[in-house]
This record gives sequence, structure tokens and C-alpha cells, in this order.
Amino acid sequence: MDFAPSARTQALAERLARFMRDEVAPAESVYAAALSGRSDHRTWRQPAIMETLKEKARAAGLWNLFLPDAEHGAGLSNVDYAPLAEIMGHSFIAPEVFNCSPPDSGNMEVLHRYGTPEQRERWLQPLLAGEIRSAFGMTEPGVASSDATNMQATARIEGDQVVLNGRKWWTTGAGHPHCRFVIFMGLNDPDAEPYKRHMMVICPLDTPGVSIERMLPVFHHYDEPSGHGELSFTEVRVPLANVILGPGRGFEIAQGRLGPGRIHHCMRAIGAAERALSLLCERARARVAFGKPLSELGGNPDIVANLRMAIEQARLLTLKTAWTLDTQGTKAALSLISQIKVVVPAVAQQAADAAIQIHGGAGLSDDFPLTRLFAYARVLRLADGPDEVHRSVIAKLEAKAQAHRESLP
Amino acid sequence: MDFAPSARTQALAERLARFMRDEVAPAESVYAAALSGRSDHRTWRQPAIMETLKEKARAAGLWNLFLPDAEHGAGLSNVDYAPLAEIMGHSFIAPEVFNCSPPDSGNMEVLHRYGTPEQRERWLQPLLAGEIRSAFGMTEPGVASSDATNMQATARIEGDQVVLNGRKWWTTGAGHPHCRFVIFMGLNDPDAEPYKRHMMVICPLDTPGVSIERMLPVFHHYDEPSGHGELSFTEVRVPLANVILGPGRGFEIAQGRLGPGRIHHCMRAIGAAERALSLLCERARARVAFGKPLSELGGNPDIVANLRMAIEQARLLTLKTAWTLDTQGTKAALSLISQIKVVVPAVAQQAADAAIQIHGGAGLSDDFPLTRLFAYARVLRLADGPDEVHRSVIAKLEAKAQAHRESLP
Amino acid sequence: MDFAPSARTQALAERLARFMRDEVAPAESVYAAALSGRSDHRTWRQPAIMETLKEKARAAGLWNLFLPDAEHGAGLSNVDYAPLAEIMGHSFIAPEVFNCSPPDSGNMEVLHRYGTPEQRERWLQPLLAGEIRSAFGMTEPGVASSDATNMQATARIEGDQVVLNGRKWWTTGAGHPHCRFVIFMGLNDPDAEPYKRHMMVICPLDTPGVSIERMLPVFHHYDEPSGHGELSFTEVRVPLANVILGPGRGFEIAQGRLGPGRIHHCMRAIGAAERALSLLCERARARVAFGKPLSELGGNPDIVANLRMAIEQARLLTLKTAWTLDTQGTKAALSLISQIKVVVPAVAQQAADAAIQIHGGAGLSDDFPLTRLFAYARVLRLADGPDEVHRSVIAKLEAKAQAHRESLP
Amino acid sequence: MDFAPSARTQALAERLARFMRDEVAPAESVYAAALSGRSDHRTWRQPAIMETLKEKARAAGLWNLFLPDAEHGAGLSNVDYAPLAEIMGHSFIAPEVFNCSPPDSGNMEVLHRYGTPEQRERWLQPLLAGEIRSAFGMTEPGVASSDATNMQATARIEGDQVVLNGRKWWTTGAGHPHCRFVIFMGLNDPDAEPYKRHMMVICPLDTPGVSIERMLPVFHHYDEPSGHGELSFTEVRVPLANVILGPGRGFEIAQGRLGPGRIHHCMRAIGAAERALSLLCERARARVAFGKPLSELGGNPDIVANLRMAIEQARLLTLKTAWTLDTQGTKAALSLISQIKVVVPAVAQQAADAAIQIHGGAGLSDDFPLTRLFAYARVLRLADGPDEVHRSVIAKLEAKAQAHRESLP
Repeated sequence: MDFAPSARTQALAERLARFMRDEVAPAESVYAAALSGRSDHRTWRQPAIMETLKEKARAAGLWNLFLPDAEHGAGLSNVDYAPLAEIMGHSFIAPEVFNCSPPDSGNMEVLHRYGTPEQRERWLQPLLAGEIRSAFGMTEPGVASSDATNMQATARIEGDQVVLNGRKWWTTGAGHPHCRFVIFMGLNDPDAEPYKRHMMVICPLDTPGVSIERMLPVFHHYDEPSGHGELSFTEVRVPLANVILGPGRGFEIAQGRLGPGRIHHCMRAIGAAERALSLLCERARARVAFGKPLSELGGNPDIVANLRMAIEQARLLTLKTAWTLDTQGTKAALSLISQIKVVVPAVAQQAADAAIQIHGGAGLSDDFPLTRLFAYARVLRLADGPDEVHRSVIAKLEAKAQAHRESLP
Repeated sequence: MDFAPSARTQALAERLARFMRDEVAPAESVYAAALSGRSDHRTWRQPAIMETLKEKARAAGLWNLFLPDAEHGAGLSNVDYAPLAEIMGHSFIAPEVFNCSPPDSGNMEVLHRYGTPEQRERWLQPLLAGEIRSAFGMTEPGVASSDATNMQATARIEGDQVVLNGRKWWTTGAGHPHCRFVIFMGLNDPDAEPYKRHMMVICPLDTPGVSIERMLPVFHHYDEPSGHGELSFTEVRVPLANVILGPGRGFEIAQGRLGPGRIHHCMRAIGAAERALSLLCERARARVAFGKPLSELGGNPDIVANLRMAIEQARLLTLKTAWTLDTQGTKAALSLISQIKVVVPAVAQQAADAAIQIHGGAGLSDDFPLTRLFAYARVLRLADGPDEVHRSVIAKLEAKAQAHRESLP
Repeated sequence: MDFAPSARTQALAERLARFMRDEVAPAESVYAAALSGRSDHRTWRQPAIMETLKEKARAAGLWNLFLPDAEHGAGLSNVDYAPLAEIMGHSFIAPEVFNCSPPDSGNMEVLHRYGTPEQRERWLQPLLAGEIRSAFGMTEPGVASSDATNMQATARIEGDQVVLNGRKWWTTGAGHPHCRFVIFMGLNDPDAEPYKRHMMVICPLDTPGVSIERMLPVFHHYDEPSGHGELSFTEVRVPLANVILGPGRGFEIAQGRLGPGRIHHCMRAIGAAERALSLLCERARARVAFGKPLSELGGNPDIVANLRMAIEQARLLTLKTAWTLDTQGTKAALSLISQIKVVVPAVAQQAADAAIQIHGGAGLSDDFPLTRLFAYARVLRLADGPDEVHRSVIAKLEAKAQAHRESLP
Repeated sequence: MDFAPSARTQALAERLARFMRDEVAPAESVYAAALSGRSDHRTWRQPAIMETLKEKARAAGLWNLFLPDAEHGAGLSNVDYAPLAEIMGHSFIAPEVFNCSPPDSGNMEVLHRYGTPEQRERWLQPLLAGEIRSAFGMTEPGVASSDATNMQATARIEGDQVVLNGRKWWTTGAGHPHCRFVIFMGLNDPDAEPYKRHMMVICPLDTPGVSIERMLPVFHHYDEPSGHGELSFTEVRVPLANVILGPGRGFEIAQGRLGPGRIHHCMRAIGAAERALSLLCERARARVAFGKPLSELGGNPDIVANLRMAIEQARLLTLKTAWTLDTQGTKAALSLISQIKVVVPAVAQQAADAAIQIHGGAGLSDDFPLTRLFAYARVLRLADGPDEVHRSVIAKLEAKAQAHRESLP
């Protein structure tokens, strides 16, 4: 159980941290100032500074670090990529700078692992190059998506075409001006067994019948210029060649995408929690009440201590998950993958909430990134399955393990 | 310890609830649609439907219910007003409809209790009539306002004028197009003992030197068209006659305003918590996952039960506080007033968070009022003193009580 | 919703509190010293001082206060008795002093409400007089007793006799040297619908076939000289006239016994929580570390404040339950009765745990009553149905209420 | 950051686990049956089976595994010993079987590191051989021992003697029939700076003036035959040669003893938590209520999942602490050492409490080891400094780290 990053990762981490301080941090306000501040995604533009940052990141060798493939990516294991993801998690704009943004990173992995040469050529290459962005359409407004088998959208094969119908929402990235396609998941055989009924299809955003109905805010924030879209698909026809892996294999792909994606999310969330804690400590040091800095007042030290312990543990759990995934594969890591999905967002939410409290009113405003950190963590308690589903998975695996293990006294 | 509302309150509560269902509920979306959706308060307008609702509310005898004075208000005790405030708490637009909005309600109480006849004539009358709105300027951006003695703004007496200087923020209501004045609190004698250094002054918003620098969002929401303003005061001159009660008496007024205001806030927050729980239950009943309605799944019943117990207890505590204030006065109610400030917002936040979780992504969007309910509760954990200060007050009073009581075995 | 105790209760409360301080408190150590300290109940004796205290209590008119019947008891409503139960909850020996001990109090109520004149004459009279004690046999070792329909013991009618078989445990009071009978609950008709299969039978402890197998410790403490017994019943024959109310009516009786019993338990537990908080405050005042009394150190004031808020709320909830039971009956109070069963023991456990922590090692020892207070609260989270079952009841009733109510916006 | 145990440790762990199952588990009830069950330590005997087990353990090479010294111990690092300590934590009798019991293990480390050749010869050798036991006298009844500088006992140097006076309690192991000496810590120079005023002295238990006043129960359990003693020292004279390391160096020794001791405690507590979880799962599988095994009922799966996540994280944190101590020394590990002292006992307490709840009444009795597991965890929240002190240490170190680190955006 060796969580130590390799020498190469350590070097990357240092370079990345320096880049974050020297390039990303000062760019944050420039980037924010270039946004439209409007809810209509048709007004959204990519702030020019982003392309500059991407250029620099690529030049610095800090590009596509997430991709375990050594040819197209950095060839890093999950344990090696994890500390880099944490560092990126300190800034909302960082993942795009390094071309490690969800859902692109997940989509790139899917295409890399399961795509045909043509699919890779046409969709993966420009994603790897940072020329286009993409989206992922799974969640639906009409059903409880916590049970993925509830999915109602359809992908009907007709000759050499697939006809897509349905409504998706929380399609992250759909509002980005560079977004070119969405990976659509839909029922292709309602009579197969539940986890073999669906398939994934690449659907270019400009296909007739695809409509972005609106962008969805999270705590009134639209995550411009990526956003979370609600999309309708009405008799949308795409070539059969756009099917990934084949009919009925949607959940198989979702499963494969799952482990590393969760680790990336969780490590970024740990970065977010660390940022919240740093801001908390800074404010608590600087502000004085009743004759003392807030940091020494009443139960405030306990709050800091509790967060430090929680973050430390959450990070170790995520690293263990990464290590298990690297060394023993997805199946051995199933419980851990669910565990980090429950633990980490909760810790990040707690950190953000505590930091807001120490900042007083300022914490609730846009003067600090705390409400966004909070919202980011809050979203993660729902995205990729709510806490409740993951707890249920953990309990089932635990019950099974306990029933079979030869117990100590 | 009789928390039962009087027969009159019961009749009012029924009428109020009917009005809420028949008039306020259908107006919510009309009202929301009429807002500009922009952060610049100069674009804000009062949606026309509000004046219609106010007219109807007044005609229905549901006007100024908060004011304990029988001539200008409804003459209700705190125990009697409490259930009405809870009902109003179900809708964000309701308090204004019934002319019971903070900070107006608090300002009206202050002017009613402490204002000169001229002050009442000029400022209280139009507030009571719902013709103007007002703001309250206490919190400052530069210091930890949890310690109110940190207040830095100044109110310097020069002849028959007072000169105001300083910066205030979280001045709620300052963005409202009808807002005409702010009650400004500032240091008038830095050498007096800490709680006798400040005074309150009525400052018309159009006085030269007053500038609304910006509106502050809460979780990215501006509470249009009231809003929370950051205001600068630069050599602002108002007549000495605008001083309320007299120099050095700012905290005395704040203290008097405190008890009823907290009860109003808390009862509204209980209404908000009940609304969150209702929405939660409705969604949990309607959505199905893994073959069952969410309401019967896993730990979800525990969530409902825990909220029911928490809300029930929070309401009783608030009613006891109201009753103690009514029958024994502010001093006897000090600990309780702090207790409800800690307990109730936390319960409301918990209810909103749980309701968001059951709603999935929808809960994070604007399709449901849950993020606003969350933000409302979250603000209350800071407004009027953060939890931390109130816990400290409760502990001090408890230690004193324990030290003096003749204990049982 | 009037929770105020009547004038009569106030007078009783004062007298009771004085008696607790003057008589009970000094007797506690005398009583403890007279116990055998052994686990074998056959060595247990009633400490002589108890009869003296009972004599004095009766003389002081502080006897059978729990019984709502005015002729044999004090004729107090639940709201009126509640504060008295709280006062008694400050001392473990108090309930017996005032003849208000469970399970006698519950048994007396059952016999008073449902007993035949002969049953009352023979068993109720000596209980009311404090001459004998009794036990209640419901829980069984072999099944999950959280689901009462799991009950396996049988009560077979044969002619004019009932034949009892089975095993009961946590039969509280069975070890008391004065214990004369147990109310046994068993299956009399396994084919009836689940809640009509059982009956209750008075079984004298000296009936052949009844055996006290052992006493059960709670956290290694035996509650000498009452104790919690494990009893076996083997072909135990008692007269048919010992059946209470009739075959199949066991749950009906249990239900009737339920409400007031829970209120008594909960109010005593609130007394216990108050005692823990008092001890906590006293110790925190007296001990100094790092140059300050513990009461002012770090997060300790928060602990005090949190307990004060929790106890205050738990008490109000219990009083509301009592008031609802008094004014609207058991059915209207069902959710509340379950709510207090969850809320109050948890608060008392939290108070005892916090008090232990402040006392350091001393808190874990017998030098303070804190581990017993803890164990008492811990037991209550299981006795009369575990928290889990009660939460489920609350959630079901809430779902029903929400589904039918005409909701506010 | 490599937490993987070495191949040697893995082999040891397998052997140890086998020994636990084959030898220790069946011996538990035999051992328990041989205890006197009395509170008077003069009646306590070492159950004969213990010496048999020790013999076997030594023969199996499972002896003194805790000692990092390769000559006298197993030569294991903290990371390597940690999993072995966890395994031992499954049984209360295991640590003595393998001669790894506190306080002996700590005392052996102290003597090994700081003892003179004579001290080692006379006291360390028989401890290593398992021939005698020892105790450690630090905590005092008269002061808040959470602040170690409060210590009042004195160790006065007079010529070639040291004269000990004072009262110690929670002197664990003092009741053991094989206990031969206590390491006594006392003030030798009240005028030195606070952490240089005390020294440690080896005091044979049979020295005139030493008196075991009584044994202290924890939740009414005496931990026979080791126990926790209250000892008085009245003009106790021991040779100056019994001083360890020298005057004023008591805290220096305490500090050195601290890190590994906490890791041992915490890893055993994790073993205890795992045992509680195993018992919980077993019971939840075996018992049925409302038509389902408890394991599938309501929120029970959440309880299992929450414990699994908490234990997993606590273990990783302890391993990281061990690794940091091994690779970077005590100073670098200070915050972590405090973190595990807060985290691990709380998790173990939570696991034991949850397991009690699932067991119902049985969980509170002696039929299962759950109340002992609970009490063990509860003690650890106080022993070696209460949670509160450790949180304060963590917060101070965090504030320092945050103030100096070059932060990311």
C-alpha cells in the first residue's frame, strides 16, 4: 500500500503548483471579468485568457495529465495523477487550463478505451488537442436518476442510423461555445436485462433535433461558460458508426469510466477543501473580536482541528482507492470508490460551510470563492449517484465480506 | 407556560393561510417573472403584482400584524404573532405583502418605541402605510462585526447636525426602489464605555455623500428588488433631530429591537423549514427508484423523522421564547433569544439540505425554492450575530444560573 | 397549548424538591453502602433506609403521584405529573421512595384500568401501599423484540387455567426481594391477526415452573436490588382469572400503558440530563487547566450551550406530548410519543457523555453518578422499542399527514 | 508514503491471526471464568491459562513484537507493528499474551531507551521475560490532569535517596498480582520552567509508604486482574539510582514514549472497532424483524457503511502517523499523533455504540463484549490527554503551518 507519488509526479506537482501560483491565480479575476454574467448560454464566450493559459500549460508539459495512456497523455497511474488533481482543485478554472476538465477527461478516456479508430480520429484527437469540448448526457429530468435503470431516453437502431429521443439534463459542458458533441446514453433494447438495455452514442450538438432548452443554475450560478444544460432530442439521427462499443453496452462503459472519474473528482474536491481551510485560517488570523484573533476564540480551534483531521483522512482514503484501482482493478475497488464519493464531498462541504461562517457576510458574497466551493461540493453529493446509493453499495459489499471472512475473536 | 394562540390569532392564522394559498402562492411565479435578473440594483423594479397583493392584504385586515401596538398594528403579543410569522415564512414574497418585512418591521418598532413625534410623522407613517421601505446599517466590511463594539463608522455631532462617515454592508433593503432611509449606527463617543459609544441616526438615502456602492449576492442571488447593499457614507450631514433616543444609546435600541426581531426571523425560518419538509415529502412520494418510492427507501424515513423532531422542538423553543418575552421581559429571555438564533437556522438549513438531496439535481436548480430556502437559513446563522457568539452568551448565562441555583441531588 | 403546571403541581414540585434535597440526597450514599455489590440476586436486600424514606414520603403527601386516578393516586394529568417526574429523575433511588418506580407504576396503571375487582384487591392494593413490587415480562432473548409480533412465549388456556411457557429477559424488577408477581405476555392464539394473538397474565413469582435464571448487567451494573432478570417459564399454571382484560388483548393493554409510561421515562431522563449538566458545570467551574477554569476553555462553553438547548427542547417536546395526550388522547399523540422516545434518551446520553469528559477519569469511576446516568439513558434508547422503530413510526405518520394536508405555498 | 507492511510483518500477521483464532479466542471464556468478579484487588489472581498462552506465544515467536529493538524485541518499525497491534486489539486478553500490554510496553520502551544498565538489568529484563508487570503513575485525583503541568506529587532528592509524596490514580496495572513497580512522575524542582520541573522514578510497589488505596472501575468494570489503581505515596524513599534519565527530564521521557504508545493504542482500538462491526454485522444478519433481517432494514445499511468508512479512514490516518514517525521522527508527527488520539477512539466508541444498538438488550449485558469495547474506547478519549487538548494542539500546529506555507490560489 504505497501512496507515495513517483519522482516524476513529484516533479510534475512542483511544476504544476508553480504554474498555479504564477499563471492561474492571477488569471482568475481576469477570467471572471470576461464572463457575461448572464444565464443565456448563447451569450457565453470563452474568455480569451483561457487559450493563452492552455498554450502555456501545454508548453510547460502540463497537458492531458489525467490520461493514463503514455502516448496521448502523461502515462500516470491513478496514484500518480491524484496529487496533481488535488492541486488543480484549488482553482475552478484550472482543470480546463490543463485539459483535464470533466466531462472531457471522462469522454476522452471512453473514446480512448472503447472508440473505433474513426471515432478517435474524429472526436478524440481534437479533444486531446484542446480544440473542442464535449458533454455527457445521462441524467434525465423525468425520473429518479439515482436508479440508472430508470433511464427513459431511447436510441433506436434503424438501418445504418441510430434515432435518439428523450430529454437529458445536468449535461455538463453543453453550454460551452467549443462544445461539439454529447455522448448520449439511451435504451436500445428495453427487453434485455436491466444493465444491458442501454447504449452510448456520439451525437454532434448540431444534429437536427438536438435542442439546448436551457442552462441550469446551481445555487443561482451557471458555471459559465460550460454550464449544465437541459437538452431535448427529437428524432435525432446519427450514423450507426457513432455507437460506442455496441448496443447494450452502455453500463459496461459507464462502469469503466467510473473509477478514475471519481478519483479525479474527489482529489479536486480535496483541493477545494484545502483552499477553503486556507481561506478560513487566513481570515481567522486577520480578524479580531473580543480582543482576540478569531483563530483563538472559543470553539474555533476545534473547527480547524476537525477539518484538518477530516481532510487528511479523506485524502488517504482517496489515495488508497487510487492505489487499489491501480493494483487490483475496478472490482476490488468498488466499495472504496463508493466510499470516497460519500466521504470527500461531505468533507469539502463542511470545510466550505465552516469557512463561510468564519468570513461572516463576506463568505456568502462573491468576494470569496466560498459559496462556489460549497456549491461544488454540494453538487458532488448528487452527481454520479447520490450518497444514499453509495452507502447502500458499501453496506452490501460489507455484508458480503463479513459473511465470508474468517473472523478474529 | 401557555403557548396557545388566542382565538383572535387562530382566526387570523386561518385567514392568513387562506390568503397565502389563494393569493400569494399563485403570485410567486408572476412576481419572479417580473424581476430583471440583474445584479445592478438601478435596474430593479418592484413587480406590479406586489402592490396589488398589499392592497388585498390590507383590505383583508392582514396588515402590520407584527406591531404589538394596537393602534397602528395588530396589538398582538409575541406568542400571538409567532404562528402568523411562521405562515408568512412559507413564501419569500409574503412578508412584504403583509408589511411585515425586515428590516422595516424592526425599524418601525424602533421608531414606534423610541422615535420623536416628528420622526414618527415623517418616517414611521409612510412605513406603516407601506408607501416606503427602509434599511438598517450596522454591519461593516472592515471589522469582525460579530463583536459589535468593533464598529468603526462615526456619527459626529456638529452643532445641529450629525456628520456620518464610514462604510456599511449587508444593509438589507437598500436596493429596493422604495427605500427612502437607512438607520445608521455609528460611534459618537469613542471614549465612553464600549456599549455607550454609539448612536442611531435616520439618514435619508438621497443625502449627499451616501452612495450605494454595490449589491451583495448570497449564494449568487441578489434578493432583488430588496437586496443587501454596501454603502459608503462620506461627510454625510443630517439634522441632529434625526438622532434616535440620543447619543450613546445605540446599543440600548439594538437590544430592545433584538428580542421580537429574532422571534420573527425564527418563526419565519420555521415556516421555511416546514416548506422544505413538505417539498421533500412530496418528491419522496412521487419518485421511484429500485422499485420503491424514495419515501420508503433506506434511511430516507429517518431523514423525515429527524426533521420532524427537529422542527417540532425548534418551534416549541421559539414559542417559549416568545412567551417568556411577553410575560417576563427581555432580560429573562436573553438566553432563550440566543438559543433560538442558534437552533432554528440550523434546523432550517438541515431541512433545506435534505430536501435538495431528495430532489437530486432539480433541488440545486431554480425549479424549486430549495437553494433559496437554504441560503435564507444560512444567512440567519450569521445575521444578528453568528452562532458562535450566541453559544457563548448561552454558556455564560448557564454558568451563572448553575452557580446560583440550589441544586437537586 | 398550555404546559404550565397547575398551582397544585407547583406546590407539589416545591415540596418534592425540598424532600429530594433534605431526605433523598443524603440517603443516596447510605443506600449504596447497604447494597451487597454482588451479581447474585439471592443476596440482595432492600436497604433499610428505603422503607424510612417511603414512610416519610407518604407522610409528606408525596405518594403515588403518577396515578391519574384521584382516589388512589394524586389525580394529576400528564402535564401536571411531568415536572414531578423530572425532579425524581435527579436520583436513582427517588422513584421507589415516592412509589413511582417502573415497572410498578405501569403495572398499577394497567391493573387500575383493566383489572378485575379481585385482581385489584389482590395485586393492586399492596402495590399502591408500597408493600410489594412487581415485574413486567415482555422482551425475549431468542428473537428481535423490536418487532413485538416476534414474541414466542405462549399462554395456553386449559380449562380454568393458563399454562405459560417461554423465556423472558430484561424483566426489570424481578430481582427485588419484594417482587411478588410478573405480568407475563404470551401468545394465546397464533392464528389471530398479529396484534390480537397475545394476552397478559398475572403470574406470581413463586408459581412452580417460574425460574429466575440470572440477573443481567447493564454496563456491568446490576441495578441492585431491582435488577433485570432472565426468567424461564416451564408449564407454569395460573388461574384463568389472572388473565387481564381477556385473550388477544395484550397489545391493546400495552398500547394504553404506553403513552404515560414514555412520558414518565422521558421526564425522569430529562431530570437525569439536568443532573449531568449540573455536575458538568460544577466540575468545569472548579477545575483549572492552562490557567483557566475548564468552563472557559476552548470549546467547553459550546458544549454547555449545546446541552442547554438540547435539554430545553427535549423538555418542551415532552410537555407537548403530555399535553396532547391529556387533551386529545393517545391516537393524536402517537407521533409525539415516538418522538420523545428518540429525542430524550439521546439528549440524556449526550449530557452524560459530555459530563464524563469534563470530569476526566473521575467521570468513568463510581465517584460520580455519571456512568450510571449514561447507562440509564443508553438503556432507554432500546427499552420500549429501539430508536429505529420509533423513527419509522414518525416517518410513516408524517408521510400520511403530508399527503393529506392542504399545503401552504 | 508506503504503508504496506513488510513481508516479515505479513508473515507475522498471518501467524498472529491464526494464534488469535486457535488459542486466544477459545481461551477468552476460560480466562473470564477464572476471575473473582470482585472489586477488591487483593482477591485477584492471574488466571492460569494466561501463563500457558504466554508460553505458547513465546514459542510461536509472537513475543515482545512491539519493541523496535531487534535484540530484545522484534525490531519492527511502527508501520510494521501497527497491523499486529490491530489484530491484538480484537481481544482484551491478547496484549498480555504477547507481552505487548500497556503500560508495560511503554515502560519497557522507556527503560530500554533511557534506563541505566542496572535499571535494565533489574526491571527491564523480567518485564521482557513476562515475569513481572508494572504500572505508570502520572494522573492525579486532585487536579485537572489534562494540563500535565498541574501535577502536584513531589519527588524530593535527599542525598542518595528520592522521597516521593502524593497521590496518583488511574495507575493502570497496579492491581495485577505480578505488578512489581510503578514509574512515578513528580515535581523535583517547582521553580524550573514548567516542562522541566518533573522527573520519573522507579518505585517498587512494596516500598514502605506506598499504598494501593482502591481500584477504580470504568463503567463498573474493574479490568481484573490489572485494574486501575488509586495509590498514595507518603514519604516513600527509593534510591537515587532509581531516577530515570535525571531530574527535570520527566516530560522529555513522556514525550518520547508518547508517539509509539499512541499508535499502539490506536491500532488496538481499530481492532476493537472491527470486532464491534463484525459482531454488528453478524447480529444484523441473524435477527429478523418486520419480515427482514436487521441488516436490510431502514437506515441500518447506512450505519454499516458509515462505520466502514470511518474505520477505514481512521486506520489509514494511524498508518500515516506510524510512517511519519518512522521516517521523519516525533516532531514531524506531532499533529498526526494528536489527530489519531481524537479520531480513533471516537470511531471505536461509535462502532461499539452502534453494535450495542443492533444487539438490543443483549448488547448492554455481558453476553457480548460490546460494553467493554465501548468502555475501552471511552477511556481512550480521556487517557493520554482528552480530545480537547489534542484538538487544541492540532489547531495550533495547523495555524502555524498555514501562516508559513506558500499557498496555492
